[in-house]
Amino acid sequence: MTKPIEVRNPRTGKYDYVIIPPPSKLLAQQCSRLRRAQKSWLQIGLQGRIEALQQWKQAILSKRDKLTEALVADTGRLSISVLEIDSFLSSIDRWCGLAPKLLQDFEKGTAIPFIELQQTAVPYSLVGVISPWNFPLLLSTIDTIPALLAGCAVIVKPSEIAPRFVAPLLETLNAVGQLRDILTFIEGAGETGAALIDNVDLVCFTGSVATGRKVAEAAARQFIPAFLELGGKDPAIVLESADIELATSAILWGSVVNTGQSCLSIERIYVAESIFDKFYHQLVTKAYRLRLAHPKIEDGEIGPIIAERQAAIIKEHLQDAVSKKAVIHCGGEVEELSGGWWCRPTVLTSVNHSMRLMTEETFGPIMPVMAFSRISEAIALANDTIYGLSAAVFGSKAEALKVAQQIDAGAISINDAALTALMHEGEKNAFKFSGMGGSRMGPAALTRFMRKKAFLVKTNTVSDPWWFNL
Amino acid sequence: MTKPIEVRNPRTGKYDYVIIPPPSKLLAQQCSRLRRAQKSWLQIGLQGRIEALQQWKQAILSKRDKLTEALVADTGRLSISVLEIDSFLSSIDRWCGLAPKLLQDFEKGTAIPFIELQQTAVPYSLVGVISPWNFPLLLSTIDTIPALLAGCAVIVKPSEIAPRFVAPLLETLNAVGQLRDILTFIEGAGETGAALIDNVDLVCFTGSVATGRKVAEAAARQFIPAFLELGGKDPAIVLESADIELATSAILWGSVVNTGQSCLSIERIYVAESIFDKFYHQLVTKAYRLRLAHPKIEDGEIGPIIAERQAAIIKEHLQDAVSKKAVIHCGGEVEELSGGWWCRPTVLTSVNHSMRLMTEETFGPIMPVMAFSRISEAIALANDTIYGLSAAVFGSKAEALKVAQQIDAGAISINDAALTALMHEGEKNAFKFSGMGGSRMGPAALTRFMRKKAFLVKTNTVSDPWWFNL
Repeated sequence: MTKPIEVRNPRTGKYDYVIIPPPSKLLAQQCSRLRRAQKSWLQIGLQGRIEALQQWKQAILSKRDKLTEALVADTGRLSISVLEIDSFLSSIDRWCGLAPKLLQDFEKGTAIPFIELQQTAVPYSLVGVISPWNFPLLLSTIDTIPALLAGCAVIVKPSEIAPRFVAPLLETLNAVGQLRDILTFIEGAGETGAALIDNVDLVCFTGSVATGRKVAEAAARQFIPAFLELGGKDPAIVLESADIELATSAILWGSVVNTGQSCLSIERIYVAESIFDKFYHQLVTKAYRLRLAHPKIEDGEIGPIIAERQAAIIKEHLQDAVSKKAVIHCGGEVEELSGGWWCRPTVLTSVNHSMRLMTEETFGPIMPVMAFSRISEAIALANDTIYGLSAAVFGSKAEALKVAQQIDAGAISINDAALTALMHEGEKNAFKFSGMGGSRMGPAALTRFMRKKAFLVKTNTVSDPWWFNL
Repeated sequence: MTKPIEVRNPRTGKYDYVIIPPPSKLLAQQCSRLRRAQKSWLQIGLQGRIEALQQWKQAILSKRDKLTEALVADTGRLSISVLEIDSFLSSIDRWCGLAPKLLQDFEKGTAIPFIELQQTAVPYSLVGVISPWNFPLLLSTIDTIPALLAGCAVIVKPSEIAPRFVAPLLETLNAVGQLRDILTFIEGAGETGAALIDNVDLVCFTGSVATGRKVAEAAARQFIPAFLELGGKDPAIVLESADIELATSAILWGSVVNTGQSCLSIERIYVAESIFDKFYHQLVTKAYRLRLAHPKIEDGEIGPIIAERQAAIIKEHLQDAVSKKAVIHCGGEVEELSGGWWCRPTVLTSVNHSMRLMTEETFGPIMPVMAFSRISEAIALANDTIYGLSAAVFGSKAEALKVAQQIDAGAISINDAALTALMHEGEKNAFKFSGMGGSRMGPAALTRFMRKKAFLVKTNTVSDPWWFNL
């Protein structure tokens, strides 16, 4: 039995939407149907799959307004919602362009005396995607598009916190017969996600470390692969040789864009002692200029906190830091405005690693700045974390790269922040608890959805020397 | 607390050897020490690592007799033990030859406007290897060599059923200072394996599906990757167009070499109706000529059953088949000779999938032969299994490849059997319950031990267009 779930509006605080999770029996039936349909999806070949995805893109373009409206209601933000749709559409084009070469690469043959090798790759039949609320559209499709091109059927369960975009998206899907049969979005919360894992051949999960670990265990029990993209506590290191003007702009953007609700947002800033004062003054000045997107959604850069439980976490982290003598230079309050939760860009100094703000994922527009005297100290601080998603280093290129080599994280932006959000070519794996399994960046993002298969052909017709001599 | 474990001799049935598992505290200390030493192992660079492995090879060559003797005592077989050492030594050379190019491939850079991409790869610090008794040396080193070249430290727990080779191997390791610090073999059974998983950063396991699933769950709880190479029930399909003389010789070898104690041995044979009689007559004739390596180890081709519990399983499978009206044409008994367990090559007909012999891993020199009338029927029978390790197809090349495409298994030999044992170039993944995680064949065998890391460098010094406009 599953019960309807009421969904909160992040701008009004009102529960104005309802989702209805599928009963588990129905979910299992859906999955069987998808698995059956996947056979024809594979048979139409890559060109057929590309055409279907391009048709979907056209269908989305024609319903763009409706989809935007739903995403705005889900997240309470405007420009990022527009950006999300753009990014999603361009990811379709990007993967349709890359896939032909990537799939061809598998078919390479080779030979040694008496044995010819042929290679191929076989997609997993049904991929399950469980995605979070912070970029509802983008993170429910980032794994989906390459999986579809690989030849998999896909079933997606977006977060129950931002599910409004699903209905208009399904309308666009219905316009593309071939896709409708092998791609499904379902509604539901954790219970539905768990049921999903029981019914798929591979699971992609984006979300918190705590839930990600549960997904890993559930997938192991089902004996299916799990690709996990979890939380981060990304550090930025600002070396003495850094361009401070550039560093403050990049870090401000990397920390507070989307109100800090991004796994790869900068959540800790370590600055060389000699430039510390200048750096944080400039950061505060710039942070102070940003405005809340309230009362009107077009008013400013900073949208509401989408998930109510996250507002509580940000509040707790700030209170904990202040109680341990952190100094707030701007922002610093989690406030309720017309029913929504808001937090202005917040810069803190006098922070240290005894504070939750410096060690746990905050997921808010919070910039704690800490000075370091030696570079080795900065590296040690950056690595003093259970996370290892990404990082940023500012300074002369050679020096910054040397520091980056020593940071235990999968992707490191040099003189910029969060560049993996913009360039998907760099294959990277999460370190520590930030994730596990194949990379969603680089060619691996597609090839991880296929099992490699080898055909080894005996090319002569005489007995092998190693056979029994009878 | 861990207790000493007595080890049975497969030829005499006597318990003539004792191993002493490390207490868990000691094991944890060993792992910390290995993890520390790994830093220098990484720092000496690939060339240094290749040199250390070549020194090890020389040390092994100089102690070859002692190592052979121990392996023979472990497995009760002679020529395969010699072959195991040869294969292990050539795997060192093979990987030392391949590694430079494989590691270089990571360092490729690329650029898009304003962003330069540099890639690198970072080895897991400490890899744990848990290996089985059927090829004690080969399967404890198959993952170890590429992991070492990738820059990992490695701790290996071989099976408690065939552990005698460890002592002479450790002597050869002691001759190579650099290796001794980062490669350890420990003794113990399941409990020690479980403790190992708690202390490493990645685990490679070769063994049964049942234990492999437990390893997957334990690894998920530890949040470390698990590469699992598990059981198989490999089918051979013999098409009407097959060269029967060749097929019977290849299948006989692929089924009964090493007394069938190989995950990729042929355990089911499906033959086209029209050639069925001719095929099985020839197979029986050839099988009947093979002799037990008893009383002297040089006497014949078929060694003892190494694990006593496996002898019981083979017996049960045969009894079950006979009770369901299978017909035995040769062999068919599991007999005790001078304390060891033995089974002659056994050919059966009148078999079907209601028999355990056709659906569960037997791991003995057993060849059940079943006729098929249509090719689609043969494919359905081959795929009617929870396993998907490898397979073999005999027939004209084009026809055989077409059939191979439809078999759900990672590696398929055409007109030969078990070619993956001989050619390691073909990347392959296990299907179904036969395994999970990175392939131990092809380049992936090395690269799976490294996390990919991306450096994304901003190459201009103007504000990014997507930053806040302040």
